Amino acid sequence: MNQLNEYLQKIKPLDQVAMDKAKKRLDNLTKPLGSLGRLEELIIKTAGIKGEVFPDISKKAVVIMCSDNGVVDEGISQSGREITAMVTKNFTRGITGINVFSALSGAELVIVDIGVEEELLCEGILNKKIRNGTSNMAIGPAMSREEALRAVLTGIEIMAELKNRGFGLVATGEMGIGNTTTSSAVACVLTGQPHNIMVGRGAGLSNDGLARKKAVVEKAICVNKPNPEDAIDVLSKVGGFDIAGLAGCFIGGAVYGIPVIIDGFISAVAALAAVRISSAVKDYIFPSHGSAEPGSSFVMKELGFKPYLELSMRLGEGTGAVLAFYLFDAAYKAFTCMGTFADADIEQYKPL
Amino acid sequence: MNQLNEYLQKIKPLDQVAMDKAKKRLDNLTKPLGSLGRLEELIIKTAGIKGEVFPDISKKAVVIMCSDNGVVDEGISQSGREITAMVTKNFTRGITGINVFSALSGAELVIVDIGVEEELLCEGILNKKIRNGTSNMAIGPAMSREEALRAVLTGIEIMAELKNRGFGLVATGEMGIGNTTTSSAVACVLTGQPHNIMVGRGAGLSNDGLARKKAVVEKAICVNKPNPEDAIDVLSKVGGFDIAGLAGCFIGGAVYGIPVIIDGFISAVAALAAVRISSAVKDYIFPSHGSAEPGSSFVMKELGFKPYLELSMRLGEGTGAVLAFYLFDAAYKAFTCMGTFADADIEQYKPL
Repeated sequence: MNQLNEYLQKIKPLDQVAMDKAKKRLDNLTKPLGSLGRLEELIIKTAGIKGEVFPDISKKAVVIMCSDNGVVDEGISQSGREITAMVTKNFTRGITGINVFSALSGAELVIVDIGVEEELLCEGILNKKIRNGTSNMAIGPAMSREEALRAVLTGIEIMAELKNRGFGLVATGEMGIGNTTTSSAVACVLTGQPHNIMVGRGAGLSNDGLARKKAVVEKAICVNKPNPEDAIDVLSKVGGFDIAGLAGCFIGGAVYGIPVIIDGFISAVAALAAVRISSAVKDYIFPSHGSAEPGSSFVMKELGFKPYLELSMRLGEGTGAVLAFYLFDAAYKAFTCMGTFADADIEQYKPL
Repeated sequence: MNQLNEYLQKIKPLDQVAMDKAKKRLDNLTKPLGSLGRLEELIIKTAGIKGEVFPDISKKAVVIMCSDNGVVDEGISQSGREITAMVTKNFTRGITGINVFSALSGAELVIVDIGVEEELLCEGILNKKIRNGTSNMAIGPAMSREEALRAVLTGIEIMAELKNRGFGLVATGEMGIGNTTTSSAVACVLTGQPHNIMVGRGAGLSNDGLARKKAVVEKAICVNKPNPEDAIDVLSKVGGFDIAGLAGCFIGGAVYGIPVIIDGFISAVAALAAVRISSAVKDYIFPSHGSAEPGSSFVMKELGFKPYLELSMRLGEGTGAVLAFYLFDAAYKAFTCMGTFADADIEQYKPL
């Protein structure tokens, strides 16, 4: 915990001077005041994060935390756990959804094996394995507290590395059969909401599968009694290495001054865990899309975020978060290239 | 009306065979069934419009209808009508919001003077002037029925030209001081909703300005008594050349098989008018963003469309519609470049 606390103490509040300067420039662009809406908020918040009015966000990455979940033994997923390794390897082959969307936005994929069961001897996958998959949370804790901490620290250290390599903007993604089940359990405990609204069909469960998944989430919480006031305890008992690692990425974004974008349900749950570990992290997080997984909207509300995109996607991998890169590009393109009222020979719009 | 009817008779229903083929390919891509959500719907609908599974949407345009509104005499805008001509000219100078966003998406601007008061002798502006601004609808009809029809036909003919030039996707935009007032009036009549919910602050009216704008909308409807069953009558009495021209663009999209994207409130009102002229047009229209102008959400609901983007923008010019080009690009990138289950060595996901 000491090492994590050291990181948390490095988080600074947003730079108000940079934010004021950004707002001033926005108000001078040739458009009605505030008419770029949430794109203006995005510019101002990013200025606060970076301490600069015109930060360099050209280098973008998506961190994909890949991990297996022991709870798959309970039959809560229509896919076997071997799919985690297969899809993780496919990320290196350029054929998955996130490959395609990343290529479109010029983003680099950072594929992290933080706990895939199989040994992945595949170029292009970072080996940060905590263990070969978690234990079955329906029987006992998914991992030890020490393992959860190590997973969180792994996420922070990856952000440090990305900072060193000049990345200005990071999206989050994940791959792990069974991880909507673990996410639902973490979300139930952290929000106090019943499993009925937090458990969804994931990649496409039948009604029977959904009922089983709800029962498993309830059982896991009952067996492990995670402490809602202690997010690390929650992550270790009913979470996964992927969720804990992504929570670390959000914390790392705050430590190193990099905006980090939420993807879908699993990523939102990781963001909530990060904010519960330190509320200061929230200022460094951005939403992207509203996932079709039902718990997603509850977790986003708990975080106080409204999605920019409503596409009913539920693919994971970071696919929704990476689409939001375009909104940053559009916002900065407007911010840097639009004319000012002086350029446009127009008096500033004034309320009538 | 005869010429318009001739066009309307050319509208075909969507090509079901192409749609089925597109769906089949989507279901074979290496992802859970339907997990790309509304991007999959977009692919299927576009296949139906184009009659092709892999249509060419590389050439994109945004049609900006620019026009003045006589109702500005009533003091319903904080900007003078000279701003319409100034901003229209600024579209040719590359410094406006729509210039910036179009450049980012590689789209061509089609700037149409369909009724700007000033003579615009400026390269890059299509002169399709119906008249130098409409009459003041608070006193009498904004235009004659014949003028409204000519404006609609102008929009259709512009789409014919874009089809000939190989454009595959078109966004709508507008510029015209006073056009949220005319749009509110048209929306009130076409939806039967009271002006209280349809009239907003436009580019930034004060409370007094807003009250005046509401009174003017009420008066215009009362004076002109437009027939809600006859969209051309509504457009002519309380509309504008820009709204009528954009309605023509939506109709032209259906006639020539080009998807046309709604921008904000004004554009949504034009889409609604087009759909009231012929319900077959609706299948060719796509939403983009949810405008901050309050009437927008009512009109979108009336049309049965849900925005993809929630950015609280209210800049007009087509800025929100052009952002949606990226969603088409992302959807088609996934559709053409993602691997199939066979490529991925994975059995298709099956409900458990």
